[in-house]
Amino acid sequence: MEAVVTDTFFPEKFADRTETVRTQNNLSPIVEHHGGPTRAYGALRSNGPIHGMNIDRRALMPDDVAIDILYCGVCHSDIHMIRGEWGEQPFPMVPGHEFVGRVSAVGEAVTRFSPGDFAGVGCMVDSCCACDSCKAGLEQYCIKDTTLTYASPDPRGPGQTYGGYAERIVVRDRFVVKIPDGADLASTAPLLCSGITTFSPMQHWRLGSGQRFAVIGLGGLGHMALKLAVHRGAEATVFTTSEDKAKDAYAMGAKDVVVWHPAATDPIPLVGEMTNRFDFMLSTIPFPFDIAPFLQLLRLDGIFVNVGAPGAIAGVSGGALWGKRRSIAGSCIGGMPETQDVVDYCCANGIRPQIEVILPDQIDDAYLRVERKSVRYRFVIDLASHRAG
Amino acid sequence: MEAVVTDTFFPEKFADRTETVRTQNNLSPIVEHHGGPTRAYGALRSNGPIHGMNIDRRALMPDDVAIDILYCGVCHSDIHMIRGEWGEQPFPMVPGHEFVGRVSAVGEAVTRFSPGDFAGVGCMVDSCCACDSCKAGLEQYCIKDTTLTYASPDPRGPGQTYGGYAERIVVRDRFVVKIPDGADLASTAPLLCSGITTFSPMQHWRLGSGQRFAVIGLGGLGHMALKLAVHRGAEATVFTTSEDKAKDAYAMGAKDVVVWHPAATDPIPLVGEMTNRFDFMLSTIPFPFDIAPFLQLLRLDGIFVNVGAPGAIAGVSGGALWGKRRSIAGSCIGGMPETQDVVDYCCANGIRPQIEVILPDQIDDAYLRVERKSVRYRFVIDLASHRAG
Repeated sequence: MEAVVTDTFFPEKFADRTETVRTQNNLSPIVEHHGGPTRAYGALRSNGPIHGMNIDRRALMPDDVAIDILYCGVCHSDIHMIRGEWGEQPFPMVPGHEFVGRVSAVGEAVTRFSPGDFAGVGCMVDSCCACDSCKAGLEQYCIKDTTLTYASPDPRGPGQTYGGYAERIVVRDRFVVKIPDGADLASTAPLLCSGITTFSPMQHWRLGSGQRFAVIGLGGLGHMALKLAVHRGAEATVFTTSEDKAKDAYAMGAKDVVVWHPAATDPIPLVGEMTNRFDFMLSTIPFPFDIAPFLQLLRLDGIFVNVGAPGAIAGVSGGALWGKRRSIAGSCIGGMPETQDVVDYCCANGIRPQIEVILPDQIDDAYLRVERKSVRYRFVIDLASHRAG
Repeated sequence: MEAVVTDTFFPEKFADRTETVRTQNNLSPIVEHHGGPTRAYGALRSNGPIHGMNIDRRALMPDDVAIDILYCGVCHSDIHMIRGEWGEQPFPMVPGHEFVGRVSAVGEAVTRFSPGDFAGVGCMVDSCCACDSCKAGLEQYCIKDTTLTYASPDPRGPGQTYGGYAERIVVRDRFVVKIPDGADLASTAPLLCSGITTFSPMQHWRLGSGQRFAVIGLGGLGHMALKLAVHRGAEATVFTTSEDKAKDAYAMGAKDVVVWHPAATDPIPLVGEMTNRFDFMLSTIPFPFDIAPFLQLLRLDGIFVNVGAPGAIAGVSGGALWGKRRSIAGSCIGGMPETQDVVDYCCANGIRPQIEVILPDQIDDAYLRVERKSVRYRFVIDLASHRAG
């Protein structure tokens, strides 16, 4: 099941470059697939460009679901992984861990899905399903180990997992969520990573109405965090390094927007006026930064939750924490029941990411735009255009 | 109200050098004091030796309590403050923030105390008493500012506060706790700092029976943490750098003792066997250290609480936190209602610090022994010997 790479980059010509977004009603008929050769888009080597390539998907096991992928979001993690910024990774790599599609076939033991159903997959595709974490529906904290959607050793086949920048995938049913009828498919895809990653800590630490919430970073995760927090009735402040995002932040419901400057001696303007202010700060910044100036902004029993970067967290001191019994925590995506919850909740309440739909040969450019902070606010790859055309 | 320093070091000769510990029944008669000149023991300059000196205590305000101090514990903080290890401090300094004594007089508005009552004072002696923190009985987190028992600007008098290494003190009644009848006085003193500092986080984060608890550092705070955790029914592990403390730790109820080596490449032996083990880790180490090896030992939703050192906390990473939704927090002593609770609770349940009683002219030696980790486990200064003799 090694990836087989095509000999040219994107040899297909996409006949239709307009961003006609597919809905649940304008899709081509279901063709039953059970695994096998699959068109995918990935990198051959660390920091390499995105190629069209062929990979093999495994044959269905009894509890597997085969999905024709329609839309896959571009997460900053994909870029970190491709660039080798999160350590050495296996290549070729097919990224993509927030996608929706249509079920094309199910194994004999699957009861929750039937061919034709709309389904979503997030950042994980397997776990032991037997430890206390898994039994609690917290598969992302599996004691034995969680299988990530891509670049993870695959316990159900030889080699590694390949993600959602592909036309099809085969996933264990427990790790597939239902997409509500009538949901806009393209803007549902990012809920599977950016939605659940920001929703889960708000649920766990009970972000409530009237609480003072701050999100640091207004990107793919950050803008979802803002929308979710506003919907909960929290009073939301956005810390962004991009002055031109302020207008969007207010439109999304922010009460305050602070443009901060990580490299400055005094990175947060008027910081003194915000001391002891926030109940909950969520950092979505995808790289390490000095959090000391932010810790002072937490009020008594306030919490700073990092979901953005796995690296060293600088600026933590005993005095800043004990001064107001502050906490720092981390949160990793969310368990499968909660992932279903966030999809249902967002679809029921009209909470949608702001997306820009692209075609597979635009992924490299999209990565550069994410790195330049020019995406507003999540790229979603249309993987059905070619197939439909 | 400046400190007046005597011209010689400890000119008094203590007639009785035996460590006869005073009880509630063998004290000399109460002599009513309302402030004024007071014998104290402190340092003239940063890192200087402890001198006998005379200070003035303020005259009683209506809600003040005057206390004849009997016993005062020696906290590692006292040494940090004297040595200048926690930044520049005002001198002369009279340390001491865990002491018990006998009420000698009360202001006209005081209802909770009468002359002759036994009373204790901890790390703070005033706060705004009006902010949300104060109204919640969390005066240590006062938004305006908490007045520390020593080396803090004194809102009730000119100059700074002087602590409990003294024969008398005048303290606002809200910041005085009652000492239960019959309590052993010398071993009650450390409850006012080392007791409350370790009890409060166990209360706040609900350390419960059967939970896996670890205390890092077995000193004045650490040994109280161990005793308190064992009494709650937690399964306690002690991490100590002093191999010769293991026997004591087991005697105090530890289930496991791990001798670790902060400077080693692999500081914790057999660390792999303890991964994802602990619900609650409490660090009482009075200096910064790399906590990365400890974070891996926390299980899902486990918390690492620092009460030991105000400085930089090294070894925090996003990945270690989000890997199991771990938290790091700080906790600062405890509020006044909770300080009363810990004194009552320990006295009712026979939870006592293990102490060594010294006389005032042994303080310098005691400091050196604390720094050499040879104290077992808290020095308490007998401040009544001279007076009684």
